[in-house]
Amino acid sequence: MIASLYQQAEQLDAHDPLRDIKAQFALPDDMIYLDGNSLGPVTHAAKERAHEVVEQQWQTDLIKSWNQHNWIGLPQQVGAKIAPLIGAHPDEVIACDSISVNLYKLLYAALAIQTQRFNEQFEHLSMARRTRIVTQQGNFPTDGYIAQGVVEHYAQTLTLDYVAEDAIVESLGLDVAVLMLTHVNYKTGYMLDIAYITQQAHALGIVVIWDLAHTTGVIPIDCTLWNVDFAVGCGYKYLNGGPGAPAFVYAAARHHEQLKQPLSGWMGHAQPFAFTQEYIAGQGMLAFLCGTPAVISMSILDAALDVFSGVEMQDVRYKSAQLTRFCLLCMEAQGLLAELECISPDDSSVRGSQLAFTHTQAYAICQAMIEKGVVADFRAPNVLRLGFAPLYVSYHDIVRSVAVLTDIMQAQTYLDDVFQVKHAVT
Amino acid sequence: MIASLYQQAEQLDAHDPLRDIKAQFALPDDMIYLDGNSLGPVTHAAKERAHEVVEQQWQTDLIKSWNQHNWIGLPQQVGAKIAPLIGAHPDEVIACDSISVNLYKLLYAALAIQTQRFNEQFEHLSMARRTRIVTQQGNFPTDGYIAQGVVEHYAQTLTLDYVAEDAIVESLGLDVAVLMLTHVNYKTGYMLDIAYITQQAHALGIVVIWDLAHTTGVIPIDCTLWNVDFAVGCGYKYLNGGPGAPAFVYAAARHHEQLKQPLSGWMGHAQPFAFTQEYIAGQGMLAFLCGTPAVISMSILDAALDVFSGVEMQDVRYKSAQLTRFCLLCMEAQGLLAELECISPDDSSVRGSQLAFTHTQAYAICQAMIEKGVVADFRAPNVLRLGFAPLYVSYHDIVRSVAVLTDIMQAQTYLDDVFQVKHAVT
Repeated sequence: MIASLYQQAEQLDAHDPLRDIKAQFALPDDMIYLDGNSLGPVTHAAKERAHEVVEQQWQTDLIKSWNQHNWIGLPQQVGAKIAPLIGAHPDEVIACDSISVNLYKLLYAALAIQTQRFNEQFEHLSMARRTRIVTQQGNFPTDGYIAQGVVEHYAQTLTLDYVAEDAIVESLGLDVAVLMLTHVNYKTGYMLDIAYITQQAHALGIVVIWDLAHTTGVIPIDCTLWNVDFAVGCGYKYLNGGPGAPAFVYAAARHHEQLKQPLSGWMGHAQPFAFTQEYIAGQGMLAFLCGTPAVISMSILDAALDVFSGVEMQDVRYKSAQLTRFCLLCMEAQGLLAELECISPDDSSVRGSQLAFTHTQAYAICQAMIEKGVVADFRAPNVLRLGFAPLYVSYHDIVRSVAVLTDIMQAQTYLDDVFQVKHAVT
Repeated sequence: MIASLYQQAEQLDAHDPLRDIKAQFALPDDMIYLDGNSLGPVTHAAKERAHEVVEQQWQTDLIKSWNQHNWIGLPQQVGAKIAPLIGAHPDEVIACDSISVNLYKLLYAALAIQTQRFNEQFEHLSMARRTRIVTQQGNFPTDGYIAQGVVEHYAQTLTLDYVAEDAIVESLGLDVAVLMLTHVNYKTGYMLDIAYITQQAHALGIVVIWDLAHTTGVIPIDCTLWNVDFAVGCGYKYLNGGPGAPAFVYAAARHHEQLKQPLSGWMGHAQPFAFTQEYIAGQGMLAFLCGTPAVISMSILDAALDVFSGVEMQDVRYKSAQLTRFCLLCMEAQGLLAELECISPDDSSVRGSQLAFTHTQAYAICQAMIEKGVVADFRAPNVLRLGFAPLYVSYHDIVRSVAVLTDIMQAQTYLDDVFQVKHAVT
């Protein structure tokens, strides 16, 4: 059985237009890395850049590098490289801070738009104030935590509602100010319909914020065509920018004239080096900058993004869907799906680039896989999560991973004490 | 004249207990670096660590590094290394985000303390609400910008007052909620008295936030003895953590039970990997964390801090004051102080580790110095700023810098067209 799966993989790999890209990554030998949705691996270009920014730019050119190596322009430069991956214009994306901090900015920016609309219309319409922020149940925790911080500050005037992922549109109404959603669920991989939900929300006057953490770099989206208001995304997952790489913010050009966010640090000032007393927000996306950019991390992300140069995101998405399908096919052929229950959608058109399985021993199974060179991921309390990055995961890798998993499940090696010890972080 | 100054320098260097530390820095040959107050140079240890974190931890150990190399504990580990430089306990300091973002957190934390006190006392005392945030005129712009963002959100209930640096205590009253000050003025080097001002503010029930950007690593302070409430500081100036290195936050242990800040991201959660829906702030300084830490930048800062191991901060301060005195002495001997007006305090006990001079051609003079291998700094509109980092600046460096400056001023080489062209950033 497994032999015929290897044969299928060989065929699929032979026809994969992305197969040569893996050579740009510095992956350890004999490791199959199915955790790029948690931390992407380093590319050779990123390594070179890390060396250059530390040993040449910082060491030798020191303070001059702000001009000479355009450190000051990195947030825009990185943003412009991310823009085509999400169907945005280069001047609609900027890299800065973390997703959490950026969501905070966007929630305030979205609320400011609603306040402005309210003030403009108040004398003409009997429109009640919008009092709700809506997000999905099971959203990545930090998204909700950040919204809780915002809501708390608005005391009695705002609430945060968590609604079921399959009932989002029904839950909306004229009382909703902001809809904040994650496109691909971090745990199940369930993928929402950005175009449809955005359209429905807009019909009710709602401003929508999309978290693209598990999307960018693996699933093409079209912020322009789909009329997206605001979005954030992650630099260290499928963009391979390194641990703790800066995140990014997208804001549609139509909102640029009225961008307003409270983290008004000097890098977002119209003239940061004029050192004037009064804050005046910079044009467009500049208004989202706050403190001094993390130059070294941002430089590495900048270089890492070059792996997408010349890559068609449609090819990436095609392979992403194929990889998850093929993985399920292999697991079924090996009889694994009875014991490992797949909680990701069956339909690959609503499935991100990952698969999740529940098992009471999920943590230990994950550890046993890692020990055999297949790096998977565990999410509390009982989820084994496999991420499929089409730029460096092959079909052959899938069969080998399934073969490893089959051995583990059949021999129950996960019951060994060594795999049962939990670490603080996984 | 200059020969005797070189002789004095030789004597001073011979008796300098810090003279051997310069070897730990990878400074370019023939460069005198007087801009460590803008961007500190790289140490050999930091270079090694950059290489290790990228090429070993990230490349080879990948996601496992969160445990294996304690990425998850870096914010505390770095904080604990900074603590002795500011007279704090290791669990009172944490590294994260930028100064701007951290000031935002602290302003809210300080306001939350005032709100709580107000609510507790309201029924017993006829205490009016505190309605003012006070800061100093000429504070570094981002500090004021951030406070402006906070004040704006409180609409009619809070104001931000800029008061003269020599009239801070007189400006305080029972209507002040928060006093936010920078210890050493970024431009003039004027240094405030933390102990005295904090005491006076506390007597009026005011919570005080100190910005230690131009202090930490060069001037020892004692947060514990001086009863400091909150502080922030910079990782990339005198701590040599690299461009855009994470900043740090200090909060006195007595405030830990009631820490509250609105950027409630998952890394500040009591159990970030439990993935629960409700935000519950972590213990103590953990509550200041927000998004995923910038691991690469933070690792480099961690290694850079080792240069302070075994260094007595009193020695650093002694040399810092000596360097500024000696520089002024040399400049006076060379007849430079008539043309270059020193706007730093005469008294070194209220002077940070820097000197500032005004001149209509300050920008071009700075460029001409850089061209001759002496890296100084320009601050708009007319300030030439020299920073003195005692760990790698020698007395000999001072004389040579003054000799270079003398040549430039006498020959008026700064009038050359090449030095007159301004860059966007300096």
